[in-house]
Amino acid sequence: MFIGEVVGNVWGQYKHPSLDNKRLLLVQPIDPLTEKKLGDPVMAVDGDVQSGPGSIVLVIDEGSSARQILGDDKAPVRTIICGVIDSVCLQGKEKRYA
Amino acid sequence: MFIGEVVGNVWGQYKHPSLDNKRLLLVQPIDPLTEKKLGDPVMAVDGDVQSGPGSIVLVIDEGSSARQILGDDKAPVRTIICGVIDSVCLQGKEKRYA
Amino acid sequence: MFIGEVVGNVWGQYKHPSLDNKRLLLVQPIDPLTEKKLGDPVMAVDGDVQSGPGSIVLVIDEGSSARQILGDDKAPVRTIICGVIDSVCLQGKEKRYA
Amino acid sequence: MFIGEVVGNVWGQYKHPSLDNKRLLLVQPIDPLTEKKLGDPVMAVDGDVQSGPGSIVLVIDEGSSARQILGDDKAPVRTIICGVIDSVCLQGKEKRYA
Amino acid sequence: MFIGEVVGNVWGQYKHPSLDNKRLLLVQPIDPLTEKKLGDPVMAVDGDVQSGPGSIVLVIDEGSSARQILGDDKAPVRTIICGVIDSVCLQGKEKRYA
Repeated sequence: MFIGEVVGNVWGQYKHPSLDNKRLLLVQPIDPLTEKKLGDPVMAVDGDVQSGPGSIVLVIDEGSSARQILGDDKAPVRTIICGVIDSVCLQGKEKRYA
Repeated sequence: MFIGEVVGNVWGQYKHPSLDNKRLLLVQPIDPLTEKKLGDPVMAVDGDVQSGPGSIVLVIDEGSSARQILGDDKAPVRTIICGVIDSVCLQGKEKRYA
Repeated sequence: MFIGEVVGNVWGQYKHPSLDNKRLLLVQPIDPLTEKKLGDPVMAVDGDVQSGPGSIVLVIDEGSSARQILGDDKAPVRTIICGVIDSVCLQGKEKRYA
Repeated sequence: MFIGEVVGNVWGQYKHPSLDNKRLLLVQPIDPLTEKKLGDPVMAVDGDVQSGPGSIVLVIDEGSSARQILGDDKAPVRTIICGVIDSVCLQGKEKRYA
Repeated sequence: MFIGEVVGNVWGQYKHPSLDNKRLLLVQPIDPLTEKKLGDPVMAVDGDVQSGPGSIVLVIDEGSSARQILGDDKAPVRTIICGVIDSVCLQGKEKRYA
């Protein structure tokens, strides 16, 4: 599980019905305290949390979790956005996003 | 889940019947906005989306998702091409592939 | 599985009921002998072990293990803190944390 | 899933009966077009495809796939050699292995 | 799956009963031919193979395999030591560990 910033919308043609009407987003993992980029961007499905470009989000990279959030046990999906981050805090230093 | 470019066809001898008649492709992960290569190429099965060398595709790297897309719950496969990308958009900047 | 140091608290809005009332923490993987940072921080759920910023913890990065520890087989979670480290020992050299 | 070259045989003592009589091999992931090494070598079980040192093989790194190929749903195995590569082709450039 | 050297014992407080009486070890992945370190150390449970500091071991990093070896389908564990390596051989060059 990691925190990332949504950096793009992606459109494509997917033949599996579980991917119809899903929003696919490009997410850049970040260090939530420094906002430094960590590694490469990944693709994720929005888990109905209204995230979009600029959102700071919690991403879970596991199929069973993603299917649980979509409420669809046949969905071919591994990476899902399951929440929007409000703030991160360490030793009195707080970073607010919401 | 990630976006990649198909960069090669691979032929081999596989003894499991679920791999008969499947197309195995070499896919280079890319940043879809800049087309920069990300990491090393991986092997993926075409999930009946008619992808081939040069296609920009969505790849899911999870066994349950791959088996769901193939409609074969016994298939030994982890990495599958589940769609062809049309476009990626960020802050008014759009990259069209289709 | 790895050892890490809790480096922050994270608050957000998650729509899945299994994430209500869970503490989400930012964990920096470390080498427990040298305390050197290893790779990037990850997000983890506290598995009811009372960990918080400064704790040195054992993290399991697998969904089934995380759901078992939470006692909730529908929880969308992959990374969990399942214990607090007391000490690490190698060839007479001991590092105590508790 | 990735392509690799078998670079060694490994012998050891394993207490689980599903690992009896299995051949464990060390596999170096490669880029099949350039034969460049990619990352670190991994351990894999030969999935009855008669691979050995020097073979260029398809490796699947997922437990369910590995157990399906071995026909043993209790086998503790994650990484399996499921086929031997004949050739790889890109834009008229072909690399033959068989 | 990979080969590693056990480099430390770890003690901690874990609340899940499946982790009671398990030995948790720190394992440094290595290239078994050159003994070169590969990547960062990980935590693993000893799968009743009597491994300890200095042992060269086979590690499986998958939850289902780990639970099978422990004979405990509720154990929260992903990484397990499933055997002790005797020797590795490549092209007449043999490295003996046992």
